[in-house]
Amino acid sequence: MERLRKAIEEFGIGIGQDVVKVDMFLNHRIDTELLFLMGEAWAEEFRDEKPDLVLTVEASGIAMAVAAAHALGDLPVVFAKKSATVVQNDEMVQAPVYSFTHKTRNMIRIDRKYLPEGSRVLIIDDFLADGEAVRGMMSLCQKQKAVVAGVGIAVEKGFQPGGRKLREAGVHLKSLAIVDRIEDGKIILREDA
Amino acid sequence: MERLRKAIEEFGIGIGQDVVKVDMFLNHRIDTELLFLMGEAWAEEFRDEKPDLVLTVEASGIAMAVAAAHALGDLPVVFAKKSATVVQNDEMVQAPVYSFTHKTRNMIRIDRKYLPEGSRVLIIDDFLADGEAVRGMMSLCQKQKAVVAGVGIAVEKGFQPGGRKLREAGVHLKSLAIVDRIEDGKIILREDA
Repeated sequence: MERLRKAIEEFGIGIGQDVVKVDMFLNHRIDTELLFLMGEAWAEEFRDEKPDLVLTVEASGIAMAVAAAHALGDLPVVFAKKSATVVQNDEMVQAPVYSFTHKTRNMIRIDRKYLPEGSRVLIIDDFLADGEAVRGMMSLCQKQKAVVAGVGIAVEKGFQPGGRKLREAGVHLKSLAIVDRIEDGKIILREDA
Repeated sequence: MERLRKAIEEFGIGIGQDVVKVDMFLNHRIDTELLFLMGEAWAEEFRDEKPDLVLTVEASGIAMAVAAAHALGDLPVVFAKKSATVVQNDEMVQAPVYSFTHKTRNMIRIDRKYLPEGSRVLIIDDFLADGEAVRGMMSLCQKQKAVVAGVGIAVEKGFQPGGRKLREAGVHLKSLAIVDRIEDGKIILREDA
């Protein structure tokens, strides 16, 4: 998506080999105009999948999920909550998410009644790297017998395996920008996203 | 605001004397249509204050801040991050927020460059109880020499002192619904909000 690519090229900061900092417009300060254009781009990609619910995980995915849901005709948004602990509670469904960056395992959870059986779920998140957060959300859907209608990502790190694995598994994945590599602090984007 | 009042009366759950649960449409599952109507209500209230930035705190404030910012012509949104620790870092400005519910003190912080001196800031949050989170955000604004143009709240707990204190301090505060009390699990709303 051209506007997002431009924002990444102008304001994104690459750190080391694999950190992509987009604080300026995506996940600390939000460029609201860009956000709603992103929502429209996801809506265009996924409209034919007929999602009836948008799922994300707190915190930085929320704004993007809202924008996508709005563009799809104000679908409900559900955001999974993060927690360090496993909760014993029949009302909640939970899944582990391993963070390669922080070397920690966290749980994400959702109230079962907000992810009903048979829902067609559009998963939205800001980043896709190893794919752990998306896999966690897909696991929540599976446990609830909900259907993953698609996965919309803002920034995919093309040099990490999450995107490739999802595509190989036949998931309808749309990343609005794909980072090919980081060179001397510069973020090099792939041409085809 | 009528639509929010109806949602609270229909789907809100009162627990004990002071817990107002609005998970079903506001801060776990989001009724996106209601969300954007709330954004318009805040925009109508605060447009003449000429805000140029919307500030909130992660996680559940983000959706509401985005809706308000959108209705005000796609203003940028900045969300403060929560953390248990004090960070020594000149790039960040931080303020403590005491939680009466959890009896803990957390820090909220923001990258200084996203809250520029002289900004006119609309603070948005989901709940106002003791007012600690709003006070923390006002403190961030003060430290950055930014102006608090107004404070927009979804649900104010009228039986806790946060709202009264802000009004007494002359803050332009708009709560879209005010809970007067909880009786036998039923949430009783004040007529005037």
